[in-house]
Amino acid sequence: MNYPNKKTNTLNSNSTSEISFSNRGMKLESDINKTNQFYLDTDVAVIHKKPTPVRIVNVSYPSRNRAKITEAYYQEASTTDYNGIYKGKYIDFEAKECASRTAFPFSSIHPHQITHLKKCMDHGAIAFIILRMTLFDKTYLIKADEFIEYYKGTTRKSLPFSWIKENGYLIDFKLSKPCDYLKTVDKVFNL
Amino acid sequence: MNYPNKKTNTLNSNSTSEISFSNRGMKLESDINKTNQFYLDTDVAVIHKKPTPVRIVNVSYPSRNRAKITEAYYQEASTTDYNGIYKGKYIDFEAKECASRTAFPFSSIHPHQITHLKKCMDHGAIAFIILRMTLFDKTYLIKADEFIEYYKGTTRKSLPFSWIKENGYLIDFKLSKPCDYLKTVDKVFNL
Repeated sequence: MNYPNKKTNTLNSNSTSEISFSNRGMKLESDINKTNQFYLDTDVAVIHKKPTPVRIVNVSYPSRNRAKITEAYYQEASTTDYNGIYKGKYIDFEAKECASRTAFPFSSIHPHQITHLKKCMDHGAIAFIILRMTLFDKTYLIKADEFIEYYKGTTRKSLPFSWIKENGYLIDFKLSKPCDYLKTVDKVFNL
Repeated sequence: MNYPNKKTNTLNSNSTSEISFSNRGMKLESDINKTNQFYLDTDVAVIHKKPTPVRIVNVSYPSRNRAKITEAYYQEASTTDYNGIYKGKYIDFEAKECASRTAFPFSSIHPHQITHLKKCMDHGAIAFIILRMTLFDKTYLIKADEFIEYYKGTTRKSLPFSWIKENGYLIDFKLSKPCDYLKTVDKVFNL
């Protein structure tokens, strides 16, 4: 059980090895997936991570009805990673880890993901970003509308940590729910 | 533009080639994707197909920051293929093509997908199945609750076409919206 030794996943910003690169963001994802499973098992909500989009180039059939993908590439996601239903509401969010001490770079989130969050809000969704500042071991819920307002109104390239502390909402950690964001959603969105 | 010549994708049930096997269900998927894009472009709804789940076994790095997946396998989906938001409601559905003249086999839909539809309904979702009977070139919306009621209450291995004709709701075809299911949703769910 690789859980919950937080130190092991703290990014070493000097590291350039592919292993640490490919592990980026995995601990938060794992925490959210465990929490979603808990929500599902206890009939609180139905929220899933979408599969990673992959562009498949070559498939071979070593045996009948057994397809082996032999060439494929990671694709950019056109939407956010997580969505589902909670208390009758459509929920949509993106989750990001950030290893900086000072700010979350806007380059970490794709413009079409921001567009997607905006479109979801326009249709009545509960939309937000979960942002973990790994060096401080703190996880925040940031409302999509407040994030977008700042993003559209600034010439900066990143979201300052001071802004995050002031406008974000801390998410609780529990063993059974290592990223208990729906508790925060209840408070922030008055559900 | 491979669109919308319906004959080309009609399944030949005698065919055993892998090519026809791998094309199964692709025409309906393409029709729904085009329709979803139309809904998105006209601000009607935000509904996307989830990426196909793939289990990645091996990745190589022929060049820096360019990951090439060299071994991967298709995985069973744990949820349905489509979800999103429409008129403030969470929408969830599975889409299937059926080449039989008489019935839709229950083996074509995974039990965990049925469980997922049930869970979504319990939380207030608009949940349904889109079923295309390819030999008759007709596409039906079937409410998830009615499908599940029949499924749970029968010892049959399939949903008879007579039941589908009586309980399903025909979905319109238009050039811009080759599977205009939200028009049917409006009527069936009184939105």
